[in-house]
Amino acid sequence: MPLRVADAARRSGRPVFAVLIEGFADPRNWREWPHEVVRIGAVGRILGALRHAGARQVVLAGRVARPSFLSLRLDGEGVRLLARVGRKAMFGGDDALLTAIVAVLREEGFEPLGAQQIFAALLMEAGCPTRAQPDAEAMEDIRRGIAVARQLGLADAGQGCVVQQGLVLALEAIEGTDAMIARCAALAREGPGGVLVKLVKPAQSRLVDLPVIGPDTIRAAAAAGLRGVAIEARWNNHVGTIVLDRESTISDADAAGLFLLALDPSRILQDEGTTP
Amino acid sequence: MPLRVADAARRSGRPVFAVLIEGFADPRNWREWPHEVVRIGAVGRILGALRHAGARQVVLAGRVARPSFLSLRLDGEGVRLLARVGRKAMFGGDDALLTAIVAVLREEGFEPLGAQQIFAALLMEAGCPTRAQPDAEAMEDIRRGIAVARQLGLADAGQGCVVQQGLVLALEAIEGTDAMIARCAALAREGPGGVLVKLVKPAQSRLVDLPVIGPDTIRAAAAAGLRGVAIEARWNNHVGTIVLDRESTISDADAAGLFLLALDPSRILQDEGTTP
Repeated sequence: MPLRVADAARRSGRPVFAVLIEGFADPRNWREWPHEVVRIGAVGRILGALRHAGARQVVLAGRVARPSFLSLRLDGEGVRLLARVGRKAMFGGDDALLTAIVAVLREEGFEPLGAQQIFAALLMEAGCPTRAQPDAEAMEDIRRGIAVARQLGLADAGQGCVVQQGLVLALEAIEGTDAMIARCAALAREGPGGVLVKLVKPAQSRLVDLPVIGPDTIRAAAAAGLRGVAIEARWNNHVGTIVLDRESTISDADAAGLFLLALDPSRILQDEGTTP
Repeated sequence: MPLRVADAARRSGRPVFAVLIEGFADPRNWREWPHEVVRIGAVGRILGALRHAGARQVVLAGRVARPSFLSLRLDGEGVRLLARVGRKAMFGGDDALLTAIVAVLREEGFEPLGAQQIFAALLMEAGCPTRAQPDAEAMEDIRRGIAVARQLGLADAGQGCVVQQGLVLALEAIEGTDAMIARCAALAREGPGGVLVKLVKPAQSRLVDLPVIGPDTIRAAAAAGLRGVAIEARWNNHVGTIVLDRESTISDADAAGLFLLALDPSRILQDEGTTP
């Protein structure tokens, strides 16, 4: 995903410089790009590298597991930054930390961008582009999944869940979507399979850490016996669930007989209100 | 657990008749007790067995996985009952279904009781009876866990979570507490271990399906590197997290160096408001 964003940025006419976080990005993939590898706690070096490269816009792309405080080994600027963002950000949810990082980048004079602002094709319009379509029972599960994912999102504790026949089979915390889907194989009931619901968190910093699905998600969903995947459609031009490699995602879903539905969660919950 | 409840009921002077749900209760454990084994979908036979035994009070004890609609094979009375409770109960959360079952038992003239109303020693007063006590950082994790568990509970989608250093490692759906704890071993960060938080759902039918911990929970928590367990203390005389075999639970926690804290979640969240 970060490489795709770099590509899209270059194609849009922006020169690209990559700051790779040690242990998370593989420098071998970035040989063709100007880049620097930096420890995550070396905040001063990260900001310095961005300034030295003349960067004005910064895109946070890819996943970095939040390190423990002990392994963080903050440099001097990192310690000053921690004092500034405070423990609420460190001990709140992922969203609190990311919001703080985005705020710091802004204060330091950079313009933080979301990957989807560089690469609009990552988001989907509302609709169901697969051959399979959700039936009434699947829509029932999707409604329940939306209500659950909303609650999770309000607690800034996750973005996804799997619902089958009204039963919440699994809730996603930090294990990752694929791991969550995998354990559903053993938890599923007989009969029509479950639905993965993967939404944007209501309080989420809209720029970073948007939920992501792709061909891997479809593969995991098919293996676990799910019937389909429901995601958040693009809204406000740059918010929604990111779909990596949309063509393969849709054709893989078609091959496996799964539906992929992009929707507006608020509208779905409203509809429920009128048809009890 | 159901056998303990039967014992406690008999010691309180109540004659006991057990209706065992086929596939979930093992009849070999119930040889000394008058009982009948019934399919879960055979609602008419279940109610008939209770009436025939002259039962007035009914305790729902033990866990029954919600069957799929296909495997339910409802009898005539079951079909009538389904029509009565409606699809909201079948497709809502566990709590919706259990609330419906309790309501039906009441309409049929029985008095539904919670296991903890027969066996008061199952609940704990507020306090920390272990040698280990939560430090400030653990209390921080507990506060976050309470906020998350509350949101989960509002969606009627779970009762437990594990939080480490502010990070939600795992959320419990239907996999069971021990399975949720087990996956935390691989997800944990360096440094101080996480905390299991296991609370009553806000909207929970207070009679049935209260959260349960016991020596198995302590064993799983210790194996996954957790530092302690926070549960909901008794309130209103018969609501709280059920602790099976309290003495062993506490002594096992002491042996493993874990704390066990029984608390009032509302009070903990209030305290947070005053010390930001």
